[in-house]
Amino acid sequence: MADSSKKVIRKSPEELQADLGYVFRNRNLLVEALVHRSYRKETGTGVDNQRLEFLGDALLGFLFADRVYNLHAEKPEGALTVLRAAVVSGVSLANKARQLGVGGALLLGNGEDLSGGRNRESNLADAMESLMGAVYIDGGIEAASEVFDRLFGKDILALEDDPWMDNPKGQLQNIVQKLFQREPKYETLEETGPPHSRVFRVGVRVDDCLRAEGTGSSKQQAQCDAAAALLLKIERDKEEA
Amino acid sequence: MADSSKKVIRKSPEELQADLGYVFRNRNLLVEALVHRSYRKETGTGVDNQRLEFLGDALLGFLFADRVYNLHAEKPEGALTVLRAAVVSGVSLANKARQLGVGGALLLGNGEDLSGGRNRESNLADAMESLMGAVYIDGGIEAASEVFDRLFGKDILALEDDPWMDNPKGQLQNIVQKLFQREPKYETLEETGPPHSRVFRVGVRVDDCLRAEGTGSSKQQAQCDAAAALLLKIERDKEEA
Repeated sequence: MADSSKKVIRKSPEELQADLGYVFRNRNLLVEALVHRSYRKETGTGVDNQRLEFLGDALLGFLFADRVYNLHAEKPEGALTVLRAAVVSGVSLANKARQLGVGGALLLGNGEDLSGGRNRESNLADAMESLMGAVYIDGGIEAASEVFDRLFGKDILALEDDPWMDNPKGQLQNIVQKLFQREPKYETLEETGPPHSRVFRVGVRVDDCLRAEGTGSSKQQAQCDAAAALLLKIERDKEEA
Repeated sequence: MADSSKKVIRKSPEELQADLGYVFRNRNLLVEALVHRSYRKETGTGVDNQRLEFLGDALLGFLFADRVYNLHAEKPEGALTVLRAAVVSGVSLANKARQLGVGGALLLGNGEDLSGGRNRESNLADAMESLMGAVYIDGGIEAASEVFDRLFGKDILALEDDPWMDNPKGQLQNIVQKLFQREPKYETLEETGPPHSRVFRVGVRVDDCLRAEGTGSSKQQAQCDAAAALLLKIERDKEEA
């Protein structure tokens, strides 16, 4: 870990904002977005980026929903939920932060820095969210919207061509295989409604704790719905870990 | 259930928009926000409100985060997360929908209507989200922002006075007692960092599946952080159920 940390090139907040393509009116907000709690604790003063992260997380969720709502007018809600994980999940945000070199501008405590904190996924994803929150507070929704499109616009357009994205069952199988070396199991739990408008309720499970349910007008559709729900759960569990 | 449904007074989309305090330019969006999937299936045409719900959910999350970020400048992120559940969770949104009489304007399939669908929490919360999404598409962020403040402004201000909100441990204990008739158990998992800047990692659990972790610079703080994480998990599980 210490090794990977050495490879992160240090940069000033000003260099980072140039890479973001946004010049802060209030430099304090830019700096606040870069303060990891380990730095706040070590220096014993000021704030860290956790409140901006709370705001930026919600902002990214909204801007993403707005873009895919308009771009993917034909996709059902379940597919949109799966798309979200590809763009604004912790892993994706950390990768975006790496592309921008955010790690080099983070303000970390000494121990966090030495143990590879500049390359740690959670630190990078949090900082990416905090930076977006800071742009919003500094420049309003239009500024945040512009930065968002510059950073994530291509990723959202590329979703159109990603075959996994319309296939939550395939994506779930892939992820469960990789993480748990097993297959998700589907089970039809209930079939209700009149013959011309049946509703299927399907459960999917990996183990006792990792399971979800879905509904749909066919078994296949209910399975896709359940798979999307479980993908989201796995994604959240990863982010909370 | 059929009984409670009878009590819901029917109203037209136009009556509902008057109660929302927003007049749609595009009436189709207002109607789309009121179409439950059971109605779409029964009539076999058009769209239901699930895509607007996806958008409205993200929009509400963002508007809420924006308001509490500004109003509760002194609160840490964990407390903000707890606050969110009090205003934009499924239960809270369904209650808001009941105040507005949204149930009476829903377009439901026959079976859904007869089985109490106009008073069903998930239908009402979904419609509330869809309506906010529809206002946003129809009138932009300013219009959505105005409607949001009219509907939720008082609730957000009232959070200031709610003693539970700053007390995630107490709130968790309350909820776990009610739902599971037991107490959440805390356990300190790790203590790291130099003496002047210790970091505590604490786990909290109700059972094998329902558990979370938190960190903080004191045991008490780490427990609050863990309690907030578990409250959020319980809230999400309820919404997905």
